[in-house]
Order: sequence, then C-alpha cells, then structure tokens
Amino acid sequence: MIKTLINGKMTDCVASTDRGLLYGDGLFETIAVIDGSMRHWPRHLSRLQAGCDRLGIEAVDGAALAHECQSLAGDSAKSVLKVIVTRGSGGRGYRIPDKPSPTRIVQLHDWPAYPPACAERGVAVRVCNARLGHHPALAGIKHLNRLEQVLARQEWEDADIMEGLLLDSAGYLIEGTMSNIFLVRDETLLTPDLLRCGVAGIMRTRVLELADRLPIDVQICPVKMKHLQEADEVFICNSLIGIWPVVAVDASDYGKGAVTVQLQALLDSCPDTGNNWQI
Amino acid sequence: MIKTLINGKMTDCVASTDRGLLYGDGLFETIAVIDGSMRHWPRHLSRLQAGCDRLGIEAVDGAALAHECQSLAGDSAKSVLKVIVTRGSGGRGYRIPDKPSPTRIVQLHDWPAYPPACAERGVAVRVCNARLGHHPALAGIKHLNRLEQVLARQEWEDADIMEGLLLDSAGYLIEGTMSNIFLVRDETLLTPDLLRCGVAGIMRTRVLELADRLPIDVQICPVKMKHLQEADEVFICNSLIGIWPVVAVDASDYGKGAVTVQLQALLDSCPDTGNNWQI
Repeated sequence: MIKTLINGKMTDCVASTDRGLLYGDGLFETIAVIDGSMRHWPRHLSRLQAGCDRLGIEAVDGAALAHECQSLAGDSAKSVLKVIVTRGSGGRGYRIPDKPSPTRIVQLHDWPAYPPACAERGVAVRVCNARLGHHPALAGIKHLNRLEQVLARQEWEDADIMEGLLLDSAGYLIEGTMSNIFLVRDETLLTPDLLRCGVAGIMRTRVLELADRLPIDVQICPVKMKHLQEADEVFICNSLIGIWPVVAVDASDYGKGAVTVQLQALLDSCPDTGNNWQI
Repeated sequence: MIKTLINGKMTDCVASTDRGLLYGDGLFETIAVIDGSMRHWPRHLSRLQAGCDRLGIEAVDGAALAHECQSLAGDSAKSVLKVIVTRGSGGRGYRIPDKPSPTRIVQLHDWPAYPPACAERGVAVRVCNARLGHHPALAGIKHLNRLEQVLARQEWEDADIMEGLLLDSAGYLIEGTMSNIFLVRDETLLTPDLLRCGVAGIMRTRVLELADRLPIDVQICPVKMKHLQEADEVFICNSLIGIWPVVAVDASDYGKGAVTVQLQALLDSCPDTGNNWQI
C-alpha cells in the first residue's frame, strides 16, 4: 500500500510535463521509519539539499518537508518514506525554465520483507556485467537517472542472489545496485571512493563514522576486483537493510567476519546524532 | 499550449509510482509534424521499438500509437509530437515487476520559434565542460536519463549560442545536447560513432543516407577535437531543425560550406522513404 503527498496534497498525479519524468531531472531519498521516527533524517535532508545544489534546483524547505514526511509516516512501527524532488515543469527542451517550481513528492511504502537471515547469516551477491559511466558532476548524489541500476537488476532472477555489484567503465568496484560495499583487508576497512560515479549512501557515512571506534584503519580509495578477491570480509549496507555480511560473490566464498559483526552491533547500539553525509 | 494523451485518454496525470519518473525507465521521441504529416514516422517508431527492446520494455503497438499521434496532431501546419514510453509502475526498487504495463504518453507541442537565420546563415556553438559517461548498453537509444544534457545546457545563457557540443569522458567529440554533429574534412563527411554514448538521431541517419548521393566519402568513426579544429565545414542536425551550418565553435570560425548546402538542398527535395535508423 502506498500513500502519497505531492506538494503537500493527497494526490498521486504528476504532470506529464514534469522534468522528473522527461529527463530524470531530480533527486530522491529512501528513508527508514521505525516506531514513527525517521531514521537519519538530518543526513537524508543534507544529501537531498546537496543534490539540489548540484543540479541547480531550488533548495527544499526542510522543515516543511519533515512535517509532510512525519504526517504521512505517523506512528508507523516500520515503513519506508520515499521523497522525490524534481525541478518541476517547464523550459524548452533541456534548458531549464526561468523560474522553475520544484515538485515535492512524499510516498509512504510498506517495509520490504527481507529475510532476517540476510543480516544474521549473510547474503550471496553477483558481479554485474553492466558498468557505471563516469559522471563526476553527478557522482555521490541520489539523482533520478537510474537506468544503469535498472539494467543491472535485470541481469539475474535467482531469488538467492540478494544484490549485484557494479564496476565502473574503468573496471573499478564502485557499489551494489541498491547498496554501498565495504571490504576488510590487511586490518583495513576499505570502501570505494565515489568521485566519478556511484551513490554516497547515508548508511555508508554512518559505517565510516562508527568504524572510527574500532582498532582498524579506514580508507576511502579506488578499489580493484583484486582487492575484493583478496578480502577477508565483505559487507554491503543501505538505510533499509543496515549491514548485510556478504558470504559469497559469484563462486567465491567469504566468512562472516569479526569487523562486520562489530559494526552491526555498533549500528544497533549507538544513537545517530550525525547530520552529514560524505562522498 | 500542450495537448496530452496518456494511454489513449485525454489526461495529463502520470502516477507518482511510474518508473519513468522514479528511474527514467523509459524512452522518448520528438517528431516534427508538418502539414498534418508526421515526418520520418517509420524511423522514429523503429528507434522507439529498438529502445524498448534494449531496456526490456514490451514492444509498442505501432499502429495504435500512430493513430493516437495522428489524432492529436490533426492537420496541424507545424507542431511537435513528443512520445514517451515508460515501463509503467511497479516492482520492488530497481527490480522490474513481473508483468509491467507500459505507460504511453503523447504530447502535442507548439513548434519552437527558431530564427530562420540559423539554417540560412549558420549558428555559433560552444564546447561544454560536461562530459558524457560511457554506457554501451544505453548508447544510441533515446532514453529518459538526460541529466547530462540538462547540466550541459545550464552552462550557458548567451542567446546567440544555439547549441553545446559534448565530449565523452575519454575526450572524444560525440554530439550536441539536442543534435548530432557532422564534419567535412579532406573531402570526407565524418560523424562520431555512438557505440559508447550519445543519441543516434533520426536526422543523422537521414543525412548519412543522403550523403551517398554526393561525391564524398562518409565515415562513422571516433572523432577527436583535433578533427573539429581542422574541419572545413561543420553542421548539426535534428528532426526539428533539419541541418544548421555551424559557423563558430567558441573562438574558431568556420564557413558555411558547399557540402552542408548540398545536404540542406537534398533534405528539402528528396522525399524520405526510409524506415530505419542507425548507430
């Protein structure tokens, strides 16, 4: 069941001239609601505003948006808010209109039924054939141009494969279709830098901050497939799944490692007081 | 003024769950209507079907779509049809639903008021800073992920600059934001290959076919900036503008050349009986 507010009104009708539809000219956020609380709200809002800034879309009224989100979420025990901000309608072709009026869409979705075993025992993933193109101007932000992910997700049907990993056009490991990836290797926690492509997940920033409490080095850097093959631990994360250990990548097996388990425990036990995100 | 049909009905309402909006999961065509006739219709339909095939979207009923387009266009002296086909609503995240029901949008727009001097005397263009990422799986088709073009078009305000040229992330010249590009150099007509990025325009195919009638070689190949700098003639084309000579690229001037003029004349005088498009 989906409930929707568009520009504050209970409707599900978007104009066919909206540039979100015509060009993917906009941004989105996927926010976990637990016991009526919007998890990591300040971080989501921060990334959304940064995305608006990057695309040249007028900044969102954060307080009004929070109010709309909260009014839809109510005291829901567990649900998902999806927020979409587009540039709105208008302009001739790609050229943006002189005074665009952004469209603000808030949808409340059911919580996805992921098996608890994914977080407890870990998941199998595959490496996709689809590659991410390089777009430094779009890297990191969560914009609406997502055909790369749609095509990648079409590559497998096997319900036991929970995620597909994406390399960029230069062959570097970047992320999953819906998650960020971390490796543990030589006592170091590694995650790919997202300077040329990829989405900088809120949970990725949260993991990077929590990892400061562990006695390991943390590196944000280019990651090669060789690093993945030689990793001691692999995990993926996003705002809905938290942290899932990766126990298989195609034919390679990995153990559910100690660092992954420690980070899962910290994620459960440490309240999040942060308000930023990072690429 | 815009008139719209969505799935055959007079409405302008697209569901906020439509994957065209959520992910840019769809395709479009921009079709010139002149004296009630949809120019190059078989080619547009062919590219649209190829795009559906590439994205795994159910093939469009071409006869029904033509009927809808013609009913909107009527006997319009000069207007523009925009056709959008999305995968429709549904699916969990990027995963496509089991039986998606595509959304078919037909919009009738006013003809854009381009100054006649553009075709007659030629236009000034600039080279954009924005670069096109490599996406072989998406190259050539006219999909809805167009943030690269939106960002590129934001780079200039000068009304005398009629187009921005785009290089790919490797530095090759690919196209304009809304047009394809041709160069004449050493008695050869060159246009960039679109194997890694770019949109294969209907007018580009038409020009390539017409060029067979001229005593020059034609090459579809990687094009470097050096080729542009050394070109004897440069022109851009699309379905609405036809052929516009390019007389300036940033600080470099070009003449309106003989091959460009011959191709403009052929375009006006030869009826189009073709039904294909090419990358």
